Amino acid sequence: MTQLLKGMRVVEGSAFVAVPLAGMTLAQMGAEVIRFDRIGGGLDAKRLPVAPSGQSLFWAGLNKGKKSIAVDMQSPEGRELVTRIITAPGDDAGMFLTNLRVRGWMDYETLTKFREDLIMVTLMGDRHGRPQVDYTVNPALGIPDITGPEGHPDPVANALPAWDCIAGNMVVSALLAAERHRLRHGTGQDVDVALKDVAAAMLGNLGMIGDAVVNTAQRGKSGNALYGAYGQDFVCADGKRVMVIGLTARQWKGLVSATGTTDAMARLAVRKGRDLMDEAVRWELRHEITEILRPFFAARRVEEFADDFNKAGLTWSQFRSVKEAVEEDADLSTDNPVFTMLDQPGLGRFPVPGAPVTFSAAPRTAPQPAPELGAHTEEVLGDVVGLPDTEIARLFDTGVVQSPRYAAKLAAE
Amino acid sequence: MTQLLKGMRVVEGSAFVAVPLAGMTLAQMGAEVIRFDRIGGGLDAKRLPVAPSGQSLFWAGLNKGKKSIAVDMQSPEGRELVTRIITAPGDDAGMFLTNLRVRGWMDYETLTKFREDLIMVTLMGDRHGRPQVDYTVNPALGIPDITGPEGHPDPVANALPAWDCIAGNMVVSALLAAERHRLRHGTGQDVDVALKDVAAAMLGNLGMIGDAVVNTAQRGKSGNALYGAYGQDFVCADGKRVMVIGLTARQWKGLVSATGTTDAMARLAVRKGRDLMDEAVRWELRHEITEILRPFFAARRVEEFADDFNKAGLTWSQFRSVKEAVEEDADLSTDNPVFTMLDQPGLGRFPVPGAPVTFSAAPRTAPQPAPELGAHTEEVLGDVVGLPDTEIARLFDTGVVQSPRYAAKLAAE
Repeated sequence: MTQLLKGMRVVEGSAFVAVPLAGMTLAQMGAEVIRFDRIGGGLDAKRLPVAPSGQSLFWAGLNKGKKSIAVDMQSPEGRELVTRIITAPGDDAGMFLTNLRVRGWMDYETLTKFREDLIMVTLMGDRHGRPQVDYTVNPALGIPDITGPEGHPDPVANALPAWDCIAGNMVVSALLAAERHRLRHGTGQDVDVALKDVAAAMLGNLGMIGDAVVNTAQRGKSGNALYGAYGQDFVCADGKRVMVIGLTARQWKGLVSATGTTDAMARLAVRKGRDLMDEAVRWELRHEITEILRPFFAARRVEEFADDFNKAGLTWSQFRSVKEAVEEDADLSTDNPVFTMLDQPGLGRFPVPGAPVTFSAAPRTAPQPAPELGAHTEEVLGDVVGLPDTEIARLFDTGVVQSPRYAAKLAAE
Repeated sequence: MTQLLKGMRVVEGSAFVAVPLAGMTLAQMGAEVIRFDRIGGGLDAKRLPVAPSGQSLFWAGLNKGKKSIAVDMQSPEGRELVTRIITAPGDDAGMFLTNLRVRGWMDYETLTKFREDLIMVTLMGDRHGRPQVDYTVNPALGIPDITGPEGHPDPVANALPAWDCIAGNMVVSALLAAERHRLRHGTGQDVDVALKDVAAAMLGNLGMIGDAVVNTAQRGKSGNALYGAYGQDFVCADGKRVMVIGLTARQWKGLVSATGTTDAMARLAVRKGRDLMDEAVRWELRHEITEILRPFFAARRVEEFADDFNKAGLTWSQFRSVKEAVEEDADLSTDNPVFTMLDQPGLGRFPVPGAPVTFSAAPRTAPQPAPELGAHTEEVLGDVVGLPDTEIARLFDTGVVQSPRYAAKLAAE
């Protein structure tokens, strides 16, 4: 959390990764972010992984530092409340992020009747309005086809919902760009982005569409090799696996030198009549290069070369499981200012990340846990919508809104 | 390209994916983005994939719509020029993005002597300043350990440099947030982000760090299954492979209904004494569910169920190679307003993406191709640095700067 965006208010109606990530990123830069959900929780309320209590670690991870309000959106009164929250006055308010496909009361046209300069950023599945998720966009565009061990017959999907993470960050920059425009011109706008278009554009940005059109030979699976230059994984004498990189000339020379393979590489270059300082040649001859490097790693435990590699400034890392990384890597611990140890009721005690970005003008503060569902219902109805206490009490009593405190009160009666 | 950020000037000293992507994203929103490179090109000038001409499709993809200046930064004069470009006056200028690790003349402390309100966003490998790339960060944090076919013994790296793509978008929002702060408070700042921290934070955001600490059973490889609910790939009668999703209750009911497996799923639920409407149960019983669904797909060609699936609003897609996607999927063609067919000298003719985001207040314009290296050297030296023509001519003649036009002139002489 920093206070960089202090005073900005953003409303979020969302589920899953991308839009919750966008709202959280803004909250971690200091914005007030109000996420509304239906009573009982949104589509992602129980998403795995969960703690032994059954509470979602996923939800807690993607909604840190937000305010939560729980509203019955089946009721006209609930819809009116959400409309009033989204369109509440304030120079630094009137911003709405969503991936819910609600036509009618919650679309841009309707909402702008209540606040003309609204900025609304909508993430869709595809540009046609059809449902698509990370797990369907990725195979449709061919990434699993080029992922996996060489010669493996089937497509291999990545375990990281990368497109969601990318799209979520694009939602943040789209909102900030639109708000910059509103500050100068006074006009809001309707901003749309489709998850599939995010992926399609990135494919083009990485040169893969051009490659598919203008080149005959198509990129296949290449295991854990770094595409297009040299980078490879090796199993060491202690059974540990490392990744070593020779992408730039400096990295390549460093790797060859640190592994004592200068002469062998020179012989390979002569034998093939090729220049290994050309990164495309390293890619072409990667198998031969790997055979030259393999004995170095096979004969050594990681600890035997780690210091030398670090001193030489090599680009390398050790493969770990997530659990090993959490246990062994200081970058995933409170040694890293990004992380704070939090004890969260129902979840447990573990290092929780704030924003990875460090702003010198807005010092980092500790990450805030995710709210309980509806924890800020009263506060938001009072401060944002401006309802009197008697009206708020009536909304609770009629079941239009919910909060943990009200639920506890009911249970105690 | 839109004109949303018209008037903003950003200078970029970069290589590879993340920071070039950040600069390009700003250019596609209308900012003037000046990328400087050493004469002959930066570290990524020849990155694969390349066209038959040898020109980099990768570089062309990640530098669209920028201005390019080529400078000899080994020379004091060249360094001074770059300093003057970065710190040139202008309310909407004084913004610098970089992933080059240059201490001394190009660090924040030195540059702010020439422009106090500079905003500088630096992307590093890790927080210690050690070199790390997407291909080393990813294995260090455990994603390849959970990627790949069930039971596969080795880690499997993804073919997409996902962390780079995520970090690049974070650089954009960090810059926009810092510029918003400067507009209001008049102060620039030094903004740092490490690629490894981006990944570490995302691991936490997705609940994976909490999962590693509080749960005994650890998530393993699960092939192409959607983690945590139901989603699976199936091979159809025509040999084509599809991905089908039952993440939400609506998706799940739709999938079961469209495949005519309602009774079989009910029997499975009874036999196991579990409720398949619970997404965690669908994950637990995914293999049994898959066996029930498999005959439906094995007996049908994709075209036999595609329309029905679409009409029912199912979330699904067909696996394709990149080449097949480019040939068959209209979302990767000029049917999609994101794409424009461009004929690029040295590269060829193929659909080129603009920004995937659509802003209603700043209509989309066609994507601009990447510049030739140094194509804007004269223009930038004149318009940004304010040098007279005689001085610019002298800089060309002494080899401090370069441009394609000057190189052609030399060759002709």
